[in-house]
Formats: sequence, structure tokens, C-alpha cells
Amino acid sequence: MATQFDPPSGTRDFLAAEAERREQAFGVIRSVFTRYGFEPLQTPAFERLDVLLGKYGDDGDKLVFKILRRGEHEASGEADLALRYDLTVPLARVAAAYGSQLPPVYKRYAIGPVWRADRPGKGRYREFVQCDLDTLGSASVLADAEALCAQHDALAALGLAEFGIQLNSRRVLAGLLEAFRVPGELGPGVLITLDKLDKLRPDAVISELAGRGLDPVQAQDLVGTMTADNAVDRIRTALKPSEEGAAGLDEVDSVLSLVAAQIPAGRIAFTPRLVRGLSYYTGPIWEVVAPGVPGSIGSGGRYDHLIEQLGGPDTPATGSSLGVERILPLLPDGGAAQRGRLDVAVTVMAEELARQSFALAAAARAAGLRSSVYLGSSGKLGRQLRWASDQGARWCLIYGTAEDEGGTVTVRDMRSGEQTPVAVGDLGGYLARAAAEDR
Amino acid sequence: MATQFDPPSGTRDFLAAEAERREQAFGVIRSVFTRYGFEPLQTPAFERLDVLLGKYGDDGDKLVFKILRRGEHEASGEADLALRYDLTVPLARVAAAYGSQLPPVYKRYAIGPVWRADRPGKGRYREFVQCDLDTLGSASVLADAEALCAQHDALAALGLAEFGIQLNSRRVLAGLLEAFRVPGELGPGVLITLDKLDKLRPDAVISELAGRGLDPVQAQDLVGTMTADNAVDRIRTALKPSEEGAAGLDEVDSVLSLVAAQIPAGRIAFTPRLVRGLSYYTGPIWEVVAPGVPGSIGSGGRYDHLIEQLGGPDTPATGSSLGVERILPLLPDGGAAQRGRLDVAVTVMAEELARQSFALAAAARAAGLRSSVYLGSSGKLGRQLRWASDQGARWCLIYGTAEDEGGTVTVRDMRSGEQTPVAVGDLGGYLARAAAEDR
Repeated sequence: MATQFDPPSGTRDFLAAEAERREQAFGVIRSVFTRYGFEPLQTPAFERLDVLLGKYGDDGDKLVFKILRRGEHEASGEADLALRYDLTVPLARVAAAYGSQLPPVYKRYAIGPVWRADRPGKGRYREFVQCDLDTLGSASVLADAEALCAQHDALAALGLAEFGIQLNSRRVLAGLLEAFRVPGELGPGVLITLDKLDKLRPDAVISELAGRGLDPVQAQDLVGTMTADNAVDRIRTALKPSEEGAAGLDEVDSVLSLVAAQIPAGRIAFTPRLVRGLSYYTGPIWEVVAPGVPGSIGSGGRYDHLIEQLGGPDTPATGSSLGVERILPLLPDGGAAQRGRLDVAVTVMAEELARQSFALAAAARAAGLRSSVYLGSSGKLGRQLRWASDQGARWCLIYGTAEDEGGTVTVRDMRSGEQTPVAVGDLGGYLARAAAEDR
Repeated sequence: MATQFDPPSGTRDFLAAEAERREQAFGVIRSVFTRYGFEPLQTPAFERLDVLLGKYGDDGDKLVFKILRRGEHEASGEADLALRYDLTVPLARVAAAYGSQLPPVYKRYAIGPVWRADRPGKGRYREFVQCDLDTLGSASVLADAEALCAQHDALAALGLAEFGIQLNSRRVLAGLLEAFRVPGELGPGVLITLDKLDKLRPDAVISELAGRGLDPVQAQDLVGTMTADNAVDRIRTALKPSEEGAAGLDEVDSVLSLVAAQIPAGRIAFTPRLVRGLSYYTGPIWEVVAPGVPGSIGSGGRYDHLIEQLGGPDTPATGSSLGVERILPLLPDGGAAQRGRLDVAVTVMAEELARQSFALAAAARAAGLRSSVYLGSSGKLGRQLRWASDQGARWCLIYGTAEDEGGTVTVRDMRSGEQTPVAVGDLGGYLARAAAEDR
């Protein structure tokens, strides 16, 4: 039930454990991308409206959050800025703006929120993080293979156990249309329908193809080939006579050969029926799928003319995108949710001893541990021990009058309940050793 | 000169070195705050308009970026959402929304962009990062001292060499008004004028005070005391008879005593003329200043009723805020700007050897180094070595026909120009050792 204090519809608040978990995952991804020599790029949350509009089609334009003009113009109800809808249009703008300052082959990653005025639903948000990796300025299949490997390594580094990569090329698809003599004007529609082979039964796809005007015999032949047990072999054979098809097969085989040392053989497969909805792809394309997750958790491909269409320079380009919002729930939680807020909780037994407790917490932090003094109002030990326990603290430091007189601090092991007096000057070393033993 | 490809006025693109530098600094701050037991909180970029409006005064309301309603409502020109203006109102909303799920003493930090439709200018942006630390639910001066120490430790951990902390209490100021018999109704205005003692000459402050209706003799007395060489001693003496003033001195002295073990004595000083512009403070207040930087680079204080005023529960609260956008330019750059994009650049001498080069880059990454193959179109070694040098690479791996036949790779030290043949299987170990020697 929504209340007045909930975040706006389609957005989320991330409290402690979840925020840490997300930050940690983004850190892992950043570190993998960096090791591949991709540079970070951060662009503003909003762009000028004219930079965004007309780039995503009519349906996309409607999903752009527009920002009202300010000052005297506010009454006009017009917008001049808009929240970014993806990270690709900002990349095209940056490529246009900083051309000569960027390396000739510009490898960049971007991890950040985008906003879409979509109808919120399960797993569909109005604010969500995208995680993109793109290489501008290289026509080499090495760049495609690199974008794919970096994406694969990021998923592996995140600890995702099971996933597979479907690989194809738009040129394979073009060759397929040619080999099966699909009339040119039917091509795009036929591909859209073939993309449904992973969801619909072959019969349904054949009749949809026929509905699009494809000769039913051709439709049967095409779908029969693509769904046969030995589909890949049959398609390889069918493609050879087509120049475009042969070039596409070469691309696919080059990528497979390049990534072979890094991606286990069972995890990636040539998948001729993979189309990728977006028409702008021009070369290799791929999708990452995980068992039990509908759709893909990552994708990528070569899109040699898109940057120019988006207002940037004419440059070959390839890249990949991780569906981080879909991936995060799949990850082993690494104990983040269970991990306590504190390693070391420090009691404050009396106002006149607060200074010493404060210094003890500092000593624990200096030993690399998360530590805080008790900030509540109770002077009772039982109450403060309960707080320490609520915080998930591994140790609790008790410093009362007796300890103050003896120059010691009582270190309570919150698991065993055992209490050990430790000289104040030795506390840092004691805790560091105890923490090391825990690991 | 602004071009159509520049980011919107008042916003910035952060390319490689700068983006890395910022990310690194935020990481350092996060790690310090975490060690103090503060939890992260991430809230959406926008809030419902009614959550934001009326919270920042009329001037503030004008600076809120409003988001146009969508769909059929778009033509109305009305807004229903707005970009967050700070991180405090979202905190108040979260405190109201998740009350019982939060710990009774809720210590949270937030680092993220906020947006203000301010007139852009030097060092004034429409999108900038705020970095806040707040403790809700504790009335203890320990919480104030903790917020201050965490802020101090973050600055120290960032490597900021010179900064000072000015400490005061709103209760000291209240006591001061009482001790100098300033009529109650003049109090707030007098404090606003006293806040200028760090910028204006005493004469100017006295005449501004007189202009506000304060008796000129009283004004002379007050300003004379506050600017005297022994101002602090004289103010301490003057405050003693005032209950509020004595309580304020106690607060200041408690904070000074608590932080003494962590903040060097010369770095923090009781500063009676510190007012802090914002009227919502109720207890200790402080500002962090750095030589050569006008204004402050950080601030904080206790604000016991603000969360309730902002729509949250009635709870004592204290916190600190780092002016990260002002701090970042002050930091030693740690070599980030000079650091190359790559540790290991890998040549691709022939198409049929690309697969081996690709695998060599993977081996370098497995050794923890940043590595990439050459993605350009030239097959010439000289051109590729220039690329390696442009990337700031420490080593360049050359793998041509000769190496392929010998099962070796030539490792070129880009500093010395020395070239060493290394067996392909030993490459990872060789590079790891060489990198360790560099450190």
C-alpha cells in the first residue's frame, strides 16, 4: 500500500544492506572493465530536450521525463531539458563534443541511472541503473570479442554461477534471407517474427510469416531448417553460397575463436535464430541468458552507423550492456544481508567516561574495524549489550569505573559471551589479531 | 564557447581521469564513514513535488527542477515530480517511511548528485554531488563529536593537507545575545550580521548592527569583545552568568574533549563568531575551512527539530556535510591524471595472430593488470608502439611470426625501450613480478 512517504511510483529507496550490495556489485564490474582498458564516463542526469527527442522513436519519446522551463518561462508549461533515457545518446553527444580529445579508439564504460516514464510493474522501474561498455572507432572483430569477454568476465566476477551466451551476426541473418530467397521488402518483418522462435511453437511462427506475405513453402523451409536438430550445420551449409552469409559466418567464427581461451566452450553457442529487436545492429550480436530468467540479462553487438544517427561522428562502434537490475537478484548475497552494521560496539557506562569510550572506538577503527560508541540514553549495561547485539557486533567493549581504575577495557566476545580484560594500550593489536583469526 | 554538443549549462561531463578521481575520492569517503558504523542510503533522483516544495523557502522553491506530468496531462504544463534539491528532505521522508525498520539511532551517509536551477557560475553547478552524514535519534553530544570526527577523518584520508575546524554552539550564541542584552526581537538579525565578522571590518559590522536597531554602544561592546585578541577568554567570562551560555560552553568543551584524541589540537578551535547561516541548528555547529578557499569546505551541526519540520518524525538529529565539489580540486592528484589508460598494450601484427594477442591480453589481466589489444587498422609495429605510448602503457607485448614460431612473446619495457623474450606460458608470472618491482 503506497503511503505519502513512499518513494515516487517506479522508484526505490535502497537502505543499508541493499545499497551496499549494489555498490559492491558496481565496484566489481568497474574493476573488470578497467582491467580491459575501458575508461569511465559520467554525463549529467539530464540533457537538452532536443538532444534526446527523436532518437528513440515515437514510443520512446513518450517515455522521456521532461523538465519544466524555469523562471518566467515556467508558466508556459514548456520543457527544455529531459532526464537521460539511456547512456548511448549521451555517448554520441560526448563523441561529438570531445572528438579530438578522445583517443582514436575510444573505449568507455558508464554505470548510472536512467529514467523512463514507463508504467511501473514487477521488475520494471522508472529509475534504473544501466551498465554499458562501448568501443568507438574500431571496425575490428577484436573489439566485438573484447566487449563480449569483458561482459562475460564481469558476470563471472560477480559470482553468477549459471549463464549462457547466444551469438549471431546480422550478416548471418541477411545471408539467411538471401539463401531462402525472402523478398527484400519482407526482410525486416521476417526477422522480427523469426526472433519469436524461442517463445512460439514453429507452427505459429510459420503462420505469422505467411501472414507477413512470405510464401508458405518458403516459410516452412526456413523455420524447418532453423528448428532442426542439426540446424546450425544446415544453416552453415545454406549460407556458404551467399557472400553476406559467408562473411557473417566468418564474423561468428572469429568471435568464437577469439573468446575460446576465456569463455568456457559450453557457455557460448552460435545461435542463428537470435535477431535482437533493434534494427541498428550491423555485425556480431549476442545475448546473455540465465536459467529461470525470461528475456536476457545482458546483450551487445556491433552498431556501425548508430552514433552518427544519434548526432555523433560517423564511426564504427560496438558494445555490450549488462542488465544489472535483473542480475542483482540472481547473485549470491556474499553475506552482505547478514553482515552486521558494526564489528565493535563500545558501551558508554557514564558521562564522565564517555571520552575514553570514544577513544576506544577510534582505536578499533584504526585497526580497520567498523566501530561506534553507544549513542542512546540508557546507562544500563544490559540495554547497551542488547544494542551491540542488534548491531550484529562481533565484540563489545565495556569500559566502566572498574576498567577505568585498572587501565583496562573488557572485551566481550558477542558469540561466546566470554569477557577478556585487555590493557587499553593493547586494544588495537588485540582486536586486529582477533579479527584476523575470524577470517 | 558553448556548442550544441556541450552538456547542459551548469552541468559537466567527467571523462576518464576526472571520473576516476571522483570515484576514488567517493570510495575513500565511503570507507571512512562505514568504519564509523554509518550505513549507506540511496534515494531516487526525483521526489513527488509536494515532498520538496515549501521546504527550502521561496528562494529555494524557485531552484527546484520540476518534471512535467506525462501522457494526457502533459499539455497541462503541470509538474508532479521534481529533482531532489538536497539529501536531507529525502532523509526525512525515509525516516517517516521506514521508522520501525530503522535502528532507533539511525546513522546514515549519502553521497550523490543533487540539482538546483541556480544561475551557473564559477564553481556553481546545477548538478553537483553532496556528501552527507547524519545521525537521527540521539541527543548525545557523542553523536555530534562522531559526525565531526568522521568528517575530519574523511578529509585526512583524502590527503587534504591543510584545513581547520571552527567550532561553536547555537546555545553559545543565544547566551551571547543574553549576556550583551540584545533585545529578543533583534537576535536573529544580529547573528546574521555577526556572521560577517570574517569578511567585514569591525567598523562595518558595528554600523550594520546599529542599522538593525541595536544600541551603538552595545554594538561596539559586542563587536569589541568578539574581535579582541583575547576574545575567547572574554566571551567565556561573559557567558558564565547566562544559563544558556554556560550550557553552550559545556557543549563546546565536551566536543573538544571528545575529539582531542583524534583531531590535532591546532586544527580545531572554539570560534564564538561562527553563526552558520541556517536557522535550524540547535546545538554544536562547525565549519571546515581551507587556506585560500573562500567560505567553507564542510560543515555540520545539531538540528533537533528539522526532521519533523521536513515531514519526518520528531527526532533529535545531528550531521555533517562535506563540500566535495570544492574539496576535489584541493586534493593531491595521486598520479591519477598522469596514470596511463593501460599497463600492458598488446600489438596485433597479423590477422592470423590476433587470437594469440587476444589471449596474451587476457593473461596480463589475470595478473591484475590493465590490458588491451590494439584495435586500430594498421599492421605496422611503429604505429602500434605509438599507440602503446599514447595509452601510457608500461609494457608493450609484441607477437609476430618470429615469436609465434618460437613460442615466446617479446615484452617491451616502454620506459627503457628494452625488449625481453618471454615464454608465452610464463607471461603472467613475468608481468606480475615486473609490476611488483615497480611499486
